[in-house]
Amino acid sequence: MQALADANKDHALAYGDDECSARAEALFREFFGPQAQVYFVFNGTGANVLNIDAMCRSHHAVVCADTAHINVDECGAPQRIVGCKLLTVPTPDGKLTPDLVRTQLHGFGFEHHSQPRAISIAQSTELGTLYTLDEIRALADLAHSYNMYLHVDGARLANAAVALGCTFKEMTTDCGVDCLSFGGTKNGMLMGESCVILNPALDMDMKYRRKQMTQLCSKMRFVAAQFETYLSTGLWRRNAEHSNRMAALLLEQLKGLDRVEVMYPVQVNSVFVRLPRVVWKSLLDDYFFYDWDEANDVVRWMCSFDTTEEDIAGFVEKLKSKLISAN
Amino acid sequence: MQALADANKDHALAYGDDECSARAEALFREFFGPQAQVYFVFNGTGANVLNIDAMCRSHHAVVCADTAHINVDECGAPQRIVGCKLLTVPTPDGKLTPDLVRTQLHGFGFEHHSQPRAISIAQSTELGTLYTLDEIRALADLAHSYNMYLHVDGARLANAAVALGCTFKEMTTDCGVDCLSFGGTKNGMLMGESCVILNPALDMDMKYRRKQMTQLCSKMRFVAAQFETYLSTGLWRRNAEHSNRMAALLLEQLKGLDRVEVMYPVQVNSVFVRLPRVVWKSLLDDYFFYDWDEANDVVRWMCSFDTTEEDIAGFVEKLKSKLISAN
Amino acid sequence: MQALADANKDHALAYGDDECSARAEALFREFFGPQAQVYFVFNGTGANVLNIDAMCRSHHAVVCADTAHINVDECGAPQRIVGCKLLTVPTPDGKLTPDLVRTQLHGFGFEHHSQPRAISIAQSTELGTLYTLDEIRALADLAHSYNMYLHVDGARLANAAVALGCTFKEMTTDCGVDCLSFGGTKNGMLMGESCVILNPALDMDMKYRRKQMTQLCSKMRFVAAQFETYLSTGLWRRNAEHSNRMAALLLEQLKGLDRVEVMYPVQVNSVFVRLPRVVWKSLLDDYFFYDWDEANDVVRWMCSFDTTEEDIAGFVEKLKSKLISAN
Amino acid sequence: MQALADANKDHALAYGDDECSARAEALFREFFGPQAQVYFVFNGTGANVLNIDAMCRSHHAVVCADTAHINVDECGAPQRIVGCKLLTVPTPDGKLTPDLVRTQLHGFGFEHHSQPRAISIAQSTELGTLYTLDEIRALADLAHSYNMYLHVDGARLANAAVALGCTFKEMTTDCGVDCLSFGGTKNGMLMGESCVILNPALDMDMKYRRKQMTQLCSKMRFVAAQFETYLSTGLWRRNAEHSNRMAALLLEQLKGLDRVEVMYPVQVNSVFVRLPRVVWKSLLDDYFFYDWDEANDVVRWMCSFDTTEEDIAGFVEKLKSKLISAN
Repeated sequence: MQALADANKDHALAYGDDECSARAEALFREFFGPQAQVYFVFNGTGANVLNIDAMCRSHHAVVCADTAHINVDECGAPQRIVGCKLLTVPTPDGKLTPDLVRTQLHGFGFEHHSQPRAISIAQSTELGTLYTLDEIRALADLAHSYNMYLHVDGARLANAAVALGCTFKEMTTDCGVDCLSFGGTKNGMLMGESCVILNPALDMDMKYRRKQMTQLCSKMRFVAAQFETYLSTGLWRRNAEHSNRMAALLLEQLKGLDRVEVMYPVQVNSVFVRLPRVVWKSLLDDYFFYDWDEANDVVRWMCSFDTTEEDIAGFVEKLKSKLISAN
Repeated sequence: MQALADANKDHALAYGDDECSARAEALFREFFGPQAQVYFVFNGTGANVLNIDAMCRSHHAVVCADTAHINVDECGAPQRIVGCKLLTVPTPDGKLTPDLVRTQLHGFGFEHHSQPRAISIAQSTELGTLYTLDEIRALADLAHSYNMYLHVDGARLANAAVALGCTFKEMTTDCGVDCLSFGGTKNGMLMGESCVILNPALDMDMKYRRKQMTQLCSKMRFVAAQFETYLSTGLWRRNAEHSNRMAALLLEQLKGLDRVEVMYPVQVNSVFVRLPRVVWKSLLDDYFFYDWDEANDVVRWMCSFDTTEEDIAGFVEKLKSKLISAN
Repeated sequence: MQALADANKDHALAYGDDECSARAEALFREFFGPQAQVYFVFNGTGANVLNIDAMCRSHHAVVCADTAHINVDECGAPQRIVGCKLLTVPTPDGKLTPDLVRTQLHGFGFEHHSQPRAISIAQSTELGTLYTLDEIRALADLAHSYNMYLHVDGARLANAAVALGCTFKEMTTDCGVDCLSFGGTKNGMLMGESCVILNPALDMDMKYRRKQMTQLCSKMRFVAAQFETYLSTGLWRRNAEHSNRMAALLLEQLKGLDRVEVMYPVQVNSVFVRLPRVVWKSLLDDYFFYDWDEANDVVRWMCSFDTTEEDIAGFVEKLKSKLISAN
Repeated sequence: MQALADANKDHALAYGDDECSARAEALFREFFGPQAQVYFVFNGTGANVLNIDAMCRSHHAVVCADTAHINVDECGAPQRIVGCKLLTVPTPDGKLTPDLVRTQLHGFGFEHHSQPRAISIAQSTELGTLYTLDEIRALADLAHSYNMYLHVDGARLANAAVALGCTFKEMTTDCGVDCLSFGGTKNGMLMGESCVILNPALDMDMKYRRKQMTQLCSKMRFVAAQFETYLSTGLWRRNAEHSNRMAALLLEQLKGLDRVEVMYPVQVNSVFVRLPRVVWKSLLDDYFFYDWDEANDVVRWMCSFDTTEEDIAGFVEKLKSKLISAN
């Protein structure tokens, strides 16, 4: 938080500083490789839609998990702005595999079908699971063998990097990822996301696309300044390590609780559990979280960069008392 | 065919006749009820997209079967032109049920989710199956209870009407259908489909929408003239009865054939069968048909208004000989 | 008319003939050069929008006369379907010149501005005027020097060809035109227009674009058959020569009429005149024509392939009597 | 600046404060009237496009000055996102009048024409001129008499309010304005604009539209907090008064300078001048400003909330020396 306040203050002083954006862009090349070209935008929806627009025309289709943010959480922005189709695949754990993707790879050359043009995955996924580097590479290879592209929604890429113990570059550029939505908002930044083009063939007319889809910030340096602090001071790592650790702590403390079933491996900072309806409904009086699958009483508990051990302890305490009352 | 040739000739003579469209429109009111308002368009994609545009804005969603024509056979036209989202549901037989639709009816009021606004079904379905009147009514009631609309893709409505022994009106207006794509091309017309608005609340700005989506015909009377002949002479019924009967004949003759599995009830003019790959691949040398599910060796055989008993006999003869060779 | 009736009949017989489209496509290569690739569509709006989609993405702009059909008569179809901008230029006679176009050629590389990508002209123009071959070539050269394209809206290209005494190819391909909307509906065909790609670099993904914008005809052969007759029998020339001659005859008979001012050179089949309001309003009781500029009492009289000398005589007779009554 | 830094700090502390947005919304109702409904967005393009989307469907048209920001500075965002058409009118001073608007008010009911649905003006205009309250009211009355709406692009509404000595409400709601883009970025805020719906009939589905066009901010409170400080502390007024005064000072000091022609009345914080090309080109080495009309050597000098008297003095000094060198 302090680092962010400083960034804001720096920004205020730096207003008119043409070099701030340049420094942030250089940092992106340092973190993702020399060919990386970054376009700062306002939010994750903007980053995802701009990347899809870079890969697709309206008669193209993007293969994604049916749980993907671009499918369920953007109110149809890809459809409205790019006009393309999403080909969604059910998955057990939020992760696409080459076999799952292949179920959608047909109809090439048939004008009645939207033409598959991109695969989009999230790292970490919306279910808090992770792709290994090999799994990412396999999807990139599959995409390229069909003249398609691989996009990564990296709203939580920092959490994935600390969990896997690898660099951003190893997880994206080195695996053949073509473009990336890289976010900071979910890991402590005030506002600001980015579209990172890793495959130079996709780097066409991007500034016009960004402007036309309303994602150009007249005071872009404010976003750039946040990313500069975020990347250069290691803030990204500290925040991600912390929130991952808090989720592990929460998981630890859930063990042995009757009627609380953890649904997926807890690999980053989210814990999905199934528990009695009366319990999670009642918890909502004191805590904010999403019901993930209301029909099946599955909810998502996210740990954040500013979640404390006391928060966890207090939450579990409350949970236990609700469980008892529900008996 | 002769009837159509006459219609064309009539058209030629009638060119400039301002009353032709009026007569056709009156016929639609006769067939669908006095409040029916018809908009002639060029093709089925145009009719479906115009209807979706009447029901939805871009932040809305349409619930449909994953086999729906609007989902798989229009190259993403609804997404590009309306900008909305399709919520697709797997079905055993191409038919939606209230329970299947309800799996998609959530997220109302949540701005991150496309808002469900319409249910779209096909009568007959893409799998050659039929909704009963009660089933249609149940879907209309469900839609209306959520402030949604029910659209029917009636590219093969004539085949459904003769199979069910009911009128168009009984199958649509009387069941609470809000709008309809009504086609002639698949049942003998040269070119021409229609968007029929049955719920007057949807009849807003339709002529501008049709024009802007490129579906206004400068010589609209040509389409109107075809519909006039089609409806007033009973051509729609004769053609549909004939093609349904041919499909029944084909089904009859397939009985007892080893390794030829009929997949769905044959209710109108299509027969879906699973058969050995080498057989259907080889049949394609002499006949044109679509492989419906290539991975599972399911193909679709359509009977047309001009299919003859000899055609059926010849086809089955050829099939039998291929089956023998394939042994 | 008889030729068209034959074409329709031929079509009826030819139904299912896979070679009809191929023959029509070969005729287009004969008329426009071996690299010409034709895509049949339903109407002029479809042809224009498909061509614009071939040239432009949504952040591009098309320079056109403010009187252009794509600007005033398509209810915003280019904006909705392509999402691009039109940069309109006032002209004295419906014709763009390099100097007029250059007023719009700025802001290249500036992300706040739609990027000029195409010039669109009509031959003949909406005001019934003609570009010489040199004028077309000059606009093509200008376009190419800016990495832009030249599109010709040729809804009335036949009338232009007979007026200039040149071939279609001399007027388009040989002048450097990149793509063309070529129509038959305004010159005697029932229904059917075409998008003709002359610059092979623009011939990308066209069949998907056509399908997605709802312009694919399931019975395409019907349109192809009309074009085959239209081009191969010289029908295009006879109809155009006739309608041009009728306009010349009308012009001749207007000479010397007091208070009837001809506004533009009559080069093809339209005559624009200014005349007293009471006169043209009253003429509308007996004849259909558009008021072109109601505020200034300018109307447009079109001569058609089926206008007769008697029609002209009768019309002028009526006009004279109205002028007298109006005194 | 200090106030903004405080706002940022407040924000940091207030993170998670659900009441911040509510307080900002209440302030908007205080400033614009009880029916005002505000939607915070990221930037001016977002605010303008969201307002246009509230007023128009894709077959509608917006009448605006040809110098309007929505026409020349948004890379075609309205066309791409709403799909509608802009009807642009040349003006002497950036201001629409009822007579100028009426030149575009025709074609109602004619399906070939985009239907005029809104008038959009900027207060102050892009040329630094102002509408009087009577002039705004006259345009609102005209709009409403045609069942149209009046939108105000108020990126510089604060400068207009201090220049006219009136409240925001007197200049908008009380004149019949239907919706407003209200900005803070050009008057000292870091980032954040707003779409203010004044006519409740337009307040439909706004949250979905905002989300789908990528303008929903996950940490909306940050924008709200800025607006709260901006409005409640009088920062808007101090900044606007200051920049207007600096422009007046600049104008004063330009008087008597040979070859420096002021083009429009200086009513807010911009000064448009025509001067020798060699002079303004050379000034760009030391100062950043836009050439407004390069062909005619007209440039725009903006005074900002942080322009000082010393800045003005230094600038004019430099200008004088360049003028002398250019002799």
